[in-house]
Amino acid sequence: MGRWEPNARQRLEKAALDLFTERGYDLTTVAEIAERAGLTKRTFFRYFADKREVLFGGQEELTRLFSEGIAGAPAGATPLEAIGRALDAVAGIFTGERLAQARARQPVVAANSELLERELLKRTKMVQAMHDALAARGVSEPTARVAAELGCLAFGTAFHRWVEAGNRREFGALAVEALSELRTATAALG
Amino acid sequence: MGRWEPNARQRLEKAALDLFTERGYDLTTVAEIAERAGLTKRTFFRYFADKREVLFGGQEELTRLFSEGIAGAPAGATPLEAIGRALDAVAGIFTGERLAQARARQPVVAANSELLERELLKRTKMVQAMHDALAARGVSEPTARVAAELGCLAFGTAFHRWVEAGNRREFGALAVEALSELRTATAALG
Repeated sequence: MGRWEPNARQRLEKAALDLFTERGYDLTTVAEIAERAGLTKRTFFRYFADKREVLFGGQEELTRLFSEGIAGAPAGATPLEAIGRALDAVAGIFTGERLAQARARQPVVAANSELLERELLKRTKMVQAMHDALAARGVSEPTARVAAELGCLAFGTAFHRWVEAGNRREFGALAVEALSELRTATAALG
Repeated sequence: MGRWEPNARQRLEKAALDLFTERGYDLTTVAEIAERAGLTKRTFFRYFADKREVLFGGQEELTRLFSEGIAGAPAGATPLEAIGRALDAVAGIFTGERLAQARARQPVVAANSELLERELLKRTKMVQAMHDALAARGVSEPTARVAAELGCLAFGTAFHRWVEAGNRREFGALAVEALSELRTATAALG
């Protein structure tokens, strides 16, 4: 088997998700994932540190895009406008092609507390990245923290609606809507 | 060794924290924790499902107090006023006696990604409990979600300041201050 397989990462992610859905996460081995993808275990570990990580491959890209989106917002943008740019920036990832994969992934993660904990750790890193990007724009504490948390909530809401059965709306539009709802909600906090 | 040891839970928590600090979390076994506490491994597992849980014993009480605090707020209270009641309700836990333990616990959790992930899961359950208690008061979405997140941020900020070396202020006062700062911050979101 050659060292540089085309689309190795994507093939491993798809094979893992298929196997986790068929047999469950616990009963699937890395060797089986590699075999299903037509690759070796060694190749798997070139892309992922452990079995859990195969489900979180997109997270680094997401975090990077959030940071870039905030950094690239116009100079006069408010914290929530900068968050809006971050959500725009990630919308490009959530194409129709990715929808089936995202839909299959959710129940796998939800069914396993180990995966759920890893998901929360990734979420925390995402919030931290947004926070740091806002702080770099001069947004003070705790406004940067609150804006980052709202950005994460808007992302989570939009993602949830996007993967829902029957949804036909695009991620970008759902994110704009979710952020706008959160902005309105802050006015009702008292 | 008798079945009902006095203060078994507290003794196990203290022994675990001492050993984790001395040797590190990974190098400490449940048998060693039980031995240090003058108890048996069997007793340990009567109180805690696994080694990790010995560091999270207070979390259920915290979550219960948050919920009760919100439920017990006056009928006309705004969501953030109800959150203020929740923070009041938990302040009773964070006595001077608990401070040394809380200070010792933080570096142990921060040094271990397994513990950090468990901490995040507990935090998520805490936010969910506050959210549910607000929803039960008729607070609508996503206001309940935002208020619960702000409650958790206020709690985290107050706790962080409380355990800081040299701090002499009480948890309750720090929580009032943190929540007030967050209320002000939401006005600067744009």
